[in-house]
Parts: sequence; structure tokens; C-alpha cells
Amino acid sequence: MRQIHSTLSVQTNGRGFYEITREIRSWIAQNQCLSGLLTVQILHTSASLLIQENADPDVRRDLETFMSDLVQDGDKRFVHRLEGPDDMSAHIRTALTSVNLSIPVRDGRLVLGTWQGIYVWEHRTEPNTRDVALHYIGE
Amino acid sequence: MRQIHSTLSVQTNGRGFYEITREIRSWIAQNQCLSGLLTVQILHTSASLLIQENADPDVRRDLETFMSDLVQDGDKRFVHRLEGPDDMSAHIRTALTSVNLSIPVRDGRLVLGTWQGIYVWEHRTEPNTRDVALHYIGE
Amino acid sequence: MRQIHSTLSVQTNGRGFYEITREIRSWIAQNQCLSGLLTVQILHTSASLLIQENADPDVRRDLETFMSDLVQDGDKRFVHRLEGPDDMSAHIRTALTSVNLSIPVRDGRLVLGTWQGIYVWEHRTEPNTRDVALHYIGE
Repeated sequence: MRQIHSTLSVQTNGRGFYEITREIRSWIAQNQCLSGLLTVQILHTSASLLIQENADPDVRRDLETFMSDLVQDGDKRFVHRLEGPDDMSAHIRTALTSVNLSIPVRDGRLVLGTWQGIYVWEHRTEPNTRDVALHYIGE
Repeated sequence: MRQIHSTLSVQTNGRGFYEITREIRSWIAQNQCLSGLLTVQILHTSASLLIQENADPDVRRDLETFMSDLVQDGDKRFVHRLEGPDDMSAHIRTALTSVNLSIPVRDGRLVLGTWQGIYVWEHRTEPNTRDVALHYIGE
Repeated sequence: MRQIHSTLSVQTNGRGFYEITREIRSWIAQNQCLSGLLTVQILHTSASLLIQENADPDVRRDLETFMSDLVQDGDKRFVHRLEGPDDMSAHIRTALTSVNLSIPVRDGRLVLGTWQGIYVWEHRTEPNTRDVALHYIGE
């Protein structure tokens, strides 16, 4: 049984979804992970991790539409506005989704459904570099 | 230290909650898991996993009422409608809840509170077979 | 490779955020955890765990404002009202956030971003004692 720690750096370019499934699969392969548990954690409070459909891009577009309407930028109820109208909404969007995921690895492959992709959901409108910690425990 | 991988198949029959606590407890017992970590992951993007109250069924009924009103089927803002009015709402409901959980096992028992049950929350209106991956690492 | 199980008891005093980052860091240090995975699970269905900003307290205040407006206490649509107007809303708030988290430990430190703190989000208005299970696997 062994462990591996790493950090994946994801460059975002405004609000939206950035798929990291391929990068994670490559990391699993390079480290010859055969059977174990992969934990993925985003080290920020205004961007989340989401496992969602990787086929039709309209799914992500509609997710964004729904979320933008539910949590409105510049909402007058918000007191925390230090970094602009998308600051507090980004924190709420993060709280309503996830910042960490634990996914099994079996027979050298990430255990995901056919249509599941792993995304960084950037909630800020400006570009950011997002650090995603990876931890593996297994064989 | 050892690992076990398995898949639980859950037959759903329309939108609603399907408790899988008993199946998971049986699996823990059959595999003589004494101390470790169980990861449960649903391999779909239109059904989620939820740990919620297992006593009064009205809790699940009210959860469903709240969610149906928050994320409306056939919402005209949605572009992704390939599989009917409950298609995109099912993806959003999944994004707002969880697709994976990691639960400790201690003294041969799943570490859950008295009122906590593990549910598959089916978000589609048609029946489906939902695959739930199980991974155990421990003694 | 070893495992440690423990329970952290958190006294809450009404709806709001109770930071447990320091307690968890102390536990990691006391147990000389160097490299592994920490799982934190709250054993209740009306309080959640949240990783959120630990700097400006207005972030938590705005999160609470948003959530209270989204999920209204005493909503007439709710059937489950056994324990008062904040009962069902507490279950829904829990379902929309998280009850378990798995966080890597690297070089003897919890892998969290600079601004990430771990909170119990109490959703009930009365004081409660909340049990939080801790499980560690690693070196």
C-alpha cells in the first residue's frame, strides 16, 4: 500500500467549466495506480469541483444559467463585496456544490460512469490559477 | 490492510428516494470489514446520493417538494431537452446534491448517526437501473 | 499504514457557523499523522460540514442570509413540522450542503487552501451537541 500527493494547477479564464478528467487519468496512469482511492480537493472557496455530464455542452450551459439566476451577482442582500459583484455569489455557488471528491481506482482506471467528467467550476469572472490537490492511497 | 471493490445495482421506479443503507451494511458484514473507509459513488449524472433522515418519510416528501419547485421540469431557460422535461432538471438536482460519499467503518459498523440513512435520489421520472460503485480500504 | 477513529463533540448555540479547523489540526498533530487521508463526517441530518472562507466573517453572514431566504423556516409547503418551523428547513439546508469531507494530510499538515476553514453549519435555532466522526488512514 502506498500514497502519492500532488497538485494540479488549472488555469481558468472566466466563469465556467474546465474539464480535468484527462489530466487526472494521465496522473493515474503515470503513477501506475492499480487499485485504490483518489481524493481531489480544490484549495479555494470561490471555485468548486463537479462530476457532471461530459457529452452535450448544453448541460453545462444550462447549469450555469440556473446557478446565475439562483445566486445573483451584486445581490443587494450581500455585505461582502470586497472583490466585486461576483465575489459573494462565487462563495455561495461553491457552498452549494463541492470542494472535494473521493473516487475509486479499479484495474488501473478511475471509476466513473460513461457520461461522468470531472470539472473545475470557476465561479469568478476574472481569470485565476486554481490549485487542485490530488492524493492517492492504494496499490 | 486490504481493499474491496464492488458495484451495487439499484432499480429505481421514478423520481424519489431509494434507501440502500441495508444493502451497504450487509456488504460490510459479508466482507468482514472491521475498520476502514467505505466510498460510495453513483455512476450517473441524473441521480444522486444523499445521507438524510430515515425516520419520518415526510422529510423525503418535503425535500422532493422543495427541489421540484426550485428546479422546475421543462424550465424554458433550459436548452438541453433531449430526453424530456425532467432531463436538465435531473442534472441540476444532481449538481446541487452529491454523487460520492466516504463513510468510516468502525468496529465492523458503518459510522452513521442514529437518524442517518443512505439514499439514492432518483431525479428522472422514468425507471432506471443505477450503478453504485463501492470501495473499501481497511482491515 | 495505520488508522485512527475518534469523535469530536461540537456544542452549538443556535443557527450559524462553528469553526473546527483548529480542533482538527490539533488532532492531526497529537496523533502524529504525517501523510494520509482524513475523513470528517457529521452524524446528524440537520447540520452540515462546510469548507469556506475563514477570513471575512461577512462571507458566513451572507451565506446564512442567502440560505435563510432560499429555504424558509415554516414554509407552508412542508408537512414535516414536528420540531418547529426550523425543522424541515434544517434538513433541506443539510441536503444542499455536505455531511462528509475527505481531506488529505501531507507533511503532517491538513491540505487546505490559505482561506479554507472547516465549519459545522448548525441549521437548527436551538443549541445542540453535534457529533463529528474523524477517521484517519495513513502514516
